Amino acid sequence: MNTFGRNFRVTTFGESHGRALGAVIDGCPPGIPLDETDIQPLLDRRRPGRSSLTSPRQETDTVEILSGVFEGKTTGTPIAMIVRNRDVQSKDYEELRTVFRPGHADFTYQEKYGLRDHRGGGRSSGRETVGRVAAGALAMKYLAMKGITVSGRIISVHGRTDPAGIEEEILAAKSAGDSVGGIAGIVAKGCPTGLGDPVFGKLDALIAGAMMGIGAVKGVEIGDGFAVAGRFGSENNDQMTKDGFATNHAGGILGGISSGQEIVVRIAVKPTPSIAKTQKTRDIHGNVVDISVSGRHDPCIVPRIIPVAEAMLALVLADALLEQGKYHRRETTG
Amino acid sequence: MNTFGRNFRVTTFGESHGRALGAVIDGCPPGIPLDETDIQPLLDRRRPGRSSLTSPRQETDTVEILSGVFEGKTTGTPIAMIVRNRDVQSKDYEELRTVFRPGHADFTYQEKYGLRDHRGGGRSSGRETVGRVAAGALAMKYLAMKGITVSGRIISVHGRTDPAGIEEEILAAKSAGDSVGGIAGIVAKGCPTGLGDPVFGKLDALIAGAMMGIGAVKGVEIGDGFAVAGRFGSENNDQMTKDGFATNHAGGILGGISSGQEIVVRIAVKPTPSIAKTQKTRDIHGNVVDISVSGRHDPCIVPRIIPVAEAMLALVLADALLEQGKYHRRETTG
Amino acid sequence: MNTFGRNFRVTTFGESHGRALGAVIDGCPPGIPLDETDIQPLLDRRRPGRSSLTSPRQETDTVEILSGVFEGKTTGTPIAMIVRNRDVQSKDYEELRTVFRPGHADFTYQEKYGLRDHRGGGRSSGRETVGRVAAGALAMKYLAMKGITVSGRIISVHGRTDPAGIEEEILAAKSAGDSVGGIAGIVAKGCPTGLGDPVFGKLDALIAGAMMGIGAVKGVEIGDGFAVAGRFGSENNDQMTKDGFATNHAGGILGGISSGQEIVVRIAVKPTPSIAKTQKTRDIHGNVVDISVSGRHDPCIVPRIIPVAEAMLALVLADALLEQGKYHRRETTG
Amino acid sequence: MNTFGRNFRVTTFGESHGRALGAVIDGCPPGIPLDETDIQPLLDRRRPGRSSLTSPRQETDTVEILSGVFEGKTTGTPIAMIVRNRDVQSKDYEELRTVFRPGHADFTYQEKYGLRDHRGGGRSSGRETVGRVAAGALAMKYLAMKGITVSGRIISVHGRTDPAGIEEEILAAKSAGDSVGGIAGIVAKGCPTGLGDPVFGKLDALIAGAMMGIGAVKGVEIGDGFAVAGRFGSENNDQMTKDGFATNHAGGILGGISSGQEIVVRIAVKPTPSIAKTQKTRDIHGNVVDISVSGRHDPCIVPRIIPVAEAMLALVLADALLEQGKYHRRETTG
Repeated sequence: MNTFGRNFRVTTFGESHGRALGAVIDGCPPGIPLDETDIQPLLDRRRPGRSSLTSPRQETDTVEILSGVFEGKTTGTPIAMIVRNRDVQSKDYEELRTVFRPGHADFTYQEKYGLRDHRGGGRSSGRETVGRVAAGALAMKYLAMKGITVSGRIISVHGRTDPAGIEEEILAAKSAGDSVGGIAGIVAKGCPTGLGDPVFGKLDALIAGAMMGIGAVKGVEIGDGFAVAGRFGSENNDQMTKDGFATNHAGGILGGISSGQEIVVRIAVKPTPSIAKTQKTRDIHGNVVDISVSGRHDPCIVPRIIPVAEAMLALVLADALLEQGKYHRRETTG
Repeated sequence: MNTFGRNFRVTTFGESHGRALGAVIDGCPPGIPLDETDIQPLLDRRRPGRSSLTSPRQETDTVEILSGVFEGKTTGTPIAMIVRNRDVQSKDYEELRTVFRPGHADFTYQEKYGLRDHRGGGRSSGRETVGRVAAGALAMKYLAMKGITVSGRIISVHGRTDPAGIEEEILAAKSAGDSVGGIAGIVAKGCPTGLGDPVFGKLDALIAGAMMGIGAVKGVEIGDGFAVAGRFGSENNDQMTKDGFATNHAGGILGGISSGQEIVVRIAVKPTPSIAKTQKTRDIHGNVVDISVSGRHDPCIVPRIIPVAEAMLALVLADALLEQGKYHRRETTG
Repeated sequence: MNTFGRNFRVTTFGESHGRALGAVIDGCPPGIPLDETDIQPLLDRRRPGRSSLTSPRQETDTVEILSGVFEGKTTGTPIAMIVRNRDVQSKDYEELRTVFRPGHADFTYQEKYGLRDHRGGGRSSGRETVGRVAAGALAMKYLAMKGITVSGRIISVHGRTDPAGIEEEILAAKSAGDSVGGIAGIVAKGCPTGLGDPVFGKLDALIAGAMMGIGAVKGVEIGDGFAVAGRFGSENNDQMTKDGFATNHAGGILGGISSGQEIVVRIAVKPTPSIAKTQKTRDIHGNVVDISVSGRHDPCIVPRIIPVAEAMLALVLADALLEQGKYHRRETTG
Repeated sequence: MNTFGRNFRVTTFGESHGRALGAVIDGCPPGIPLDETDIQPLLDRRRPGRSSLTSPRQETDTVEILSGVFEGKTTGTPIAMIVRNRDVQSKDYEELRTVFRPGHADFTYQEKYGLRDHRGGGRSSGRETVGRVAAGALAMKYLAMKGITVSGRIISVHGRTDPAGIEEEILAAKSAGDSVGGIAGIVAKGCPTGLGDPVFGKLDALIAGAMMGIGAVKGVEIGDGFAVAGRFGSENNDQMTKDGFATNHAGGILGGISSGQEIVVRIAVKPTPSIAKTQKTRDIHGNVVDISVSGRHDPCIVPRIIPVAEAMLALVLADALLEQGKYHRRETTG
């Protein structure tokens, strides 16, 4: 299932060490100005090799738009975008052909499919998110036309919240041949009321599915999240005043529908499972072996997950906006 | 969007104060023994009026199966189940016709649809979950045939974890005209490896969407959830031994695919927004007014949310099992 | 797969000899006036026992709306409608438990599911269309609010096109213990331009799928249909004048999108397979046996298929109208 | 809506005069041997410029597989395939920027989107089928592994059925600056029983939708199609003997489910609307103008539509096979 969304539908493809990665976006409204310069900056934010905090893999991640644009504007037809892989060092992964890396999808893919592309994780690699970010960049253009912005930030890494502390934790883990986890926050501003649908199409349900579907994410909160478990109703309800809601504990969503306040999301990101430290694992023959994952890996994935999480939130909102177009109350009462 | 699932598809219907609630399950495999006695016990667990801890609304929630069963077995055709509403006290809600209850969907429904069924919350009411639980009971029968069980429990209420403390917190809130939140845990045992799909159909993404789509849920964790944010990779990875995985920090899902371990889910449940304590809100004319919600409400929704969360997890797993049938590796190699 | 439509989504349920039949409509816009009297007349048109030309089975087909309506108007939530079966003579079908009726789904259902509800065809019965017609009646209400009407008529039966000849053919077949086929035509007037989507969501593709999905339909034509195969392009193209299109060979659809002209559909309906005349068939043990189907059957299904075909066309158009709401060109240029 | 199928899902993209066309296939089972040489021959059959009977546009239609294949086999991940456009003569179409070609989607696209890619029809061009044929070639590989073959042929052109007569009609139309229509037949052999689902997922409904969704198709028949309208039930029923069905009037589908016989489909293909003969039309300002379409066009599209129709039938069957995997009767009784 490589398609996301009901209306603004994104299908991604491509493996870490295959020829190319990309996305096809179907359902994008016509008339949106678009060329590669709208997409490239967001891809640049997620690509590796940009600092000592991230994987040294060198990819330009240059995007090419193949279809769906005519005279500089979207036409309403599918927009295909591709990024070719360049710095592929598949031999790094030769030793992983028969071994399951702890914390990775190696074991479950092998069990599910009976075969797997062991080179860089294949489809389970973080490189799969190239397609998501490219599609998300397009969604953000559409959202911007509606006055909506999406932005993310690092909330904490290994418990530290200040920039210096965060960098310190990441570099310490790196030099120890280890990795660290953290928390990221994503916020959408300018959303109208009414996005999302009751019951199974709740906006928060769609956001939670989108976020938990990013590799390494193990928890999702909307608004105050797990903190609500320790509260009284009288503390947690967002009362209303003449100027609107007095607080935003709900994170901008009530009954699964946007309230017009900021939409507030937080995600828990696990430490990168690929570490140099020796661990116990099994090979495909069932033998217990030691493993030390070399290759090129991020000691902390939180910084690079942020553009991906932004993209996913943008995709959910673009999809909900189009859905809303169908049933807007003016339709039947006007 | 009142349909859930791709293969084991559930469509629910019905409002809190309408004639009936129910569900249609499409895609249930043929040959499963089924009658009303398979469904009723689970509906009984979620229905109100059973103790001093829950709403006093009296509903028998008697289920009738209308279709899809022949000579005591499912036939592969849609199974429709209905539960008629009985103890409807719509006049209790007359004063809510023009006022938005804080923490409720009243405001967002009005904004979205331009009208709403104010009686008991209409479709946003917890009574909507009758259809989910009925469908979940059927999913559990199917799962049981595959050796899979799903069960939930209260983890904490207002920070207390022992049964006596939990009851104390709930009764204290009730007598104060207030409500409290808490955390519930749901576990699935006996799942085979290989459930779930890479990228957008990850099993944890589906679970997160299912859980966050339950009213009052504001956070979802898989496995160790937010705790992973404070760990090193060497602490968090589940290493493998001769006997399988040494730990289960991942909660039974790797790369979005089940690993064969227990699937572990936790949800944060907000305090019931309907409270007797006076709060500030607005009416539909924009005036700020005081509100004290009377009616019949649960001072803590955690106990009654558990059968709903179990049902949703069962639905996700039944759906994933059927999905898996299509692509099982034996298919192309045999 | 018992759900039809992307936006105006209909899920039908129920077997010929089960407790009840019905439909759940999800995605219907709010604010449409609705009660049972809007639905009943269309159900009355399709029900049996109304003349010597149709099956003598006596059903009142009384509809009950269970949900989705508040104070006489749709609320945007799912509308469940049920019709209870009354005149069930299952014993008529006892001899069919082990025999495959020629031209029926008996053989294929048994092969597919390994079991089947032999009573009146179960889900493959024409009674399944009760749910479609009920849902179609609602779709027609919505279409009428947009100025669109759908109507069908008998074009021919066994080659005869005049009413007297048609009646004569049907009664002759009936008295011979046989049945006859025919052609029905359905037309939609008042459709706006722009309905339907390029490529796989073409309006004519959706209509063809909807029509061929009605039992007994073996051919579908849009506009001039098979007649175009014998024409030159200069004969077949619909040229344009100051007043619009000069002709309507295309049947109101160009490139899969409505042109604003009448939408013209024709369907070929096979003779009812249940006949009293003796035929050769097999039983489930593989023995060749003689069969003479008694029970209560229509000698010609064309008259009763028309309300079903109207319903299906109405469902396609209602769905397309909602889809169109999302991407209307004013959206991005306004 | 540029995605086709529920399980074997194909998303196509690309315009006649854009950079590239292609398809992404999601849901293809793992383990199928695949490289470009499996796809190219089918693309060659549909490409233009190969004889005096077809458009002289010169395209090599060279396919590149970008993802989803590892060590020569499909991996279960999405397979992206692209074909770059080469012989693009957009200036031929400059005069069409403001004029609606009769019989084309020009008018309806303009109405729907408020803009259109007038170069070669954009997405409404027959070139869009490049992606379908590439995907269909993959579906055929999968079907072949299951013993299923799909093949099509010209049945008639302008009423002529012999090869010489067909060629004569096409060349006569060409030299007259005109075009002709015809009928094509497509047959699938080796299908197992049980494909397709009751009610809205009937195999014939899916086939009809797939066929009518090919540009220029105005009619679809399954089995004997419209001929059944003139028959008695005793003539039309396929009786059964010791060796199986005695006849195949039904075209291999009963009650929407495959019977194990040959699946027989026929489609009516309209004459190519682009002709040199002068016709009346309108421009986008509402003026009536004369039009003579030059450019490079097929005088009869029947020969080149056959690989497309084969591809669509293959896609429907591959999808149904995977769907069937989920619910096979052995599943619940084993």
